[in-house]
Amino acid sequence: MNIDRERLIARLDTLGQIGMSDGARARLALTKEDKLGRDLVVSWMREAGAEVHIDSIGNIHAMLRGISDNAPVMTGSHIDTVKRAGALDGCYGVVAGIEVIDAFRRNNARPHHTIIVTAFTNEEGVRYSPDLLGSRVMTKDMGVSAALALISTDGERCGEELERIGYAGDRAPWDFLPAVYVELHIEQGPVLDVRRIPIGIVTGVQGYNWWKVTVMGRANHAGTTPMHLRRDAGDAAMRVINQLTERARRDAIPSVATVGTFTLEPGAINVVPGKASFTIDFRDPSNEGLATAEAELRRSLDALGDEGFTTTLSSLSRNPAVAFDEKLCKTIAQVAADRSLASLEMLSGASHDAQMLARVCPTAMIFVPSRDGISHNPDEFTMPDDLYTGAVVLLETIARLAARDAVS
Amino acid sequence: MNIDRERLIARLDTLGQIGMSDGARARLALTKEDKLGRDLVVSWMREAGAEVHIDSIGNIHAMLRGISDNAPVMTGSHIDTVKRAGALDGCYGVVAGIEVIDAFRRNNARPHHTIIVTAFTNEEGVRYSPDLLGSRVMTKDMGVSAALALISTDGERCGEELERIGYAGDRAPWDFLPAVYVELHIEQGPVLDVRRIPIGIVTGVQGYNWWKVTVMGRANHAGTTPMHLRRDAGDAAMRVINQLTERARRDAIPSVATVGTFTLEPGAINVVPGKASFTIDFRDPSNEGLATAEAELRRSLDALGDEGFTTTLSSLSRNPAVAFDEKLCKTIAQVAADRSLASLEMLSGASHDAQMLARVCPTAMIFVPSRDGISHNPDEFTMPDDLYTGAVVLLETIARLAARDAVS
Repeated sequence: MNIDRERLIARLDTLGQIGMSDGARARLALTKEDKLGRDLVVSWMREAGAEVHIDSIGNIHAMLRGISDNAPVMTGSHIDTVKRAGALDGCYGVVAGIEVIDAFRRNNARPHHTIIVTAFTNEEGVRYSPDLLGSRVMTKDMGVSAALALISTDGERCGEELERIGYAGDRAPWDFLPAVYVELHIEQGPVLDVRRIPIGIVTGVQGYNWWKVTVMGRANHAGTTPMHLRRDAGDAAMRVINQLTERARRDAIPSVATVGTFTLEPGAINVVPGKASFTIDFRDPSNEGLATAEAELRRSLDALGDEGFTTTLSSLSRNPAVAFDEKLCKTIAQVAADRSLASLEMLSGASHDAQMLARVCPTAMIFVPSRDGISHNPDEFTMPDDLYTGAVVLLETIARLAARDAVS
Repeated sequence: MNIDRERLIARLDTLGQIGMSDGARARLALTKEDKLGRDLVVSWMREAGAEVHIDSIGNIHAMLRGISDNAPVMTGSHIDTVKRAGALDGCYGVVAGIEVIDAFRRNNARPHHTIIVTAFTNEEGVRYSPDLLGSRVMTKDMGVSAALALISTDGERCGEELERIGYAGDRAPWDFLPAVYVELHIEQGPVLDVRRIPIGIVTGVQGYNWWKVTVMGRANHAGTTPMHLRRDAGDAAMRVINQLTERARRDAIPSVATVGTFTLEPGAINVVPGKASFTIDFRDPSNEGLATAEAELRRSLDALGDEGFTTTLSSLSRNPAVAFDEKLCKTIAQVAADRSLASLEMLSGASHDAQMLARVCPTAMIFVPSRDGISHNPDEFTMPDDLYTGAVVLLETIARLAARDAVS
């Protein structure tokens, strides 16, 4: 069995045209652009010989019936996008999955286990919050009725939008729950590109904490206030931030700390800042790491209290770390090794539907390189060779998982 | 000779009423509020028996003729204000100076040297740039015609505004250049208040450099980019700032460093900043200290270049440090000591007309405490006892300087 390389690349390009306007691509969940993308993907699924099912949260399932009635082997991803998106984030996993089914069809190879390729609804979470909506509902992290009642950023009910675009299905999402789930995705980070390794074996998704921090000091004249009589809120905030980023830099475990916003008040060149406000995005592969970082951050802020500052720390969002299935990761590593492909065990810093599936079944992901680590950006790019290689590894992995006795 | 304590306090309060609106005080240079303040001050000068002269940049000179024709002894300050001002900044020195002349009048004491009390034009520099305009023109740092051609922030020519408010005089400003200059002022910083010392003897004005700094790195996804593959412009900027403020904190000499504005781009919680922009206000009592700090800042930024960042450093404003006259400082210290008043030698972090006068004659300043170091703010406050004490020290200092043989 093999992947149709030319068609894989061509289909990614074709799907990527939908939602293009003025050089930027937007195919937000349940918009008319999303409907056009869905219609195209469904046509490719049918062309590959799959049964297509739509569930009640709008997930699209392409099913290739196996010999057994056991729970299926699933792959998939999403085709909704962010506002200025590339053509690969999500789409790559769905289009490659369809090529996997098509490879079986072309070889008249009926799998022992049923194979499903799923395009999940509203993975990005740009138009409807929370993100990972389709996989979240399928794994019962959120109820169907609650999901259908969600209101979009432009004021539209999720259930009504699904009906409007023709993707309000009648099947229960959990009817499709698999025995095992593998998701193929671009890395969206620079690690594979920098190290020139074609295959990443994703052993888990980092957890994250998003915080908003304020430090209140005292505004003073910048000329007349000696350093030892100041309560410079900006200086204090930067000292806390330096502790946090130094720790992340030195840490053996790959935690990351980002301060993406920072403002000073009153914000004049010759006034000592009386208030500093900033956000922290802290990620760690283990929940212990997240808890330790939070405890250290709280200690740093408490220490500022001893210096006379007032501080607040509020959580904006948090997501626990997810560990993927070790045995499944080994299967993927073996597939790569059998084809003499270099591979690297790594963590995902971004969220994926796979982290919801990991709650209910053995799950892992396959990454391919992203040039310069750029994603969520029209400049997102992966070499066609790498796109092909990733699809080949997915095909072989799915083939092994769908064979008799592979999945208990 | 003595100071009329009740009248000193009452006049500061009366002058402080002019320009009040909704609890905030504004008497910007050459506005109708400034004219009302000037008219009031001129009436008090005449009441004190002084000849009043207006020069061509609008400085008001109250002259008490001495016995000799030598160059006069001058004191003074300004009555223009910032936009949300206290009642004391500048006004205190002018009103106390008028009380000094009045003390001579009440005692029928004719000084050996002529005494002049001057209210300088546009000290604050809020409506017309540069600041210290009246003293700057008097000391020939700027020509009269250039000064009169200045355009205010609201589009009005300085010369026309002087005519409009009736303060376009015909005397050359340098006709009034003194043999010695002493300025009484509130500290505008917390040092005397914290140490409960009534008299500050100002030995100089700190020089300052104002810079704008940009650091360009690379924006990246906060989740997928490991710390060692980032070029986080915000983190780099904060490291440079920490070096600068740590140095100012540790330094034996009282330099001060302030970062009053700081922005990150693109400014999203989950995006590694690609650009950081900030300002630095660095002050030091010596020009060597200013130069050393600038050299160290440039080295820090160059080091960021080695890490792959692009940086820019542009000067927004700079003013050299000014040393006041040692002998004159000793005279003031002796006056304080003779009255058993604690005094402290200190530097001024703010700009004053005295720094222009210091270019042409022996100059010094006397500071009184500012509660909590607050100034340029309606909450600016000095205890009446301290205001009185400062005026007494000014009177005695002027009396000694105006005596025969005191000034060569």
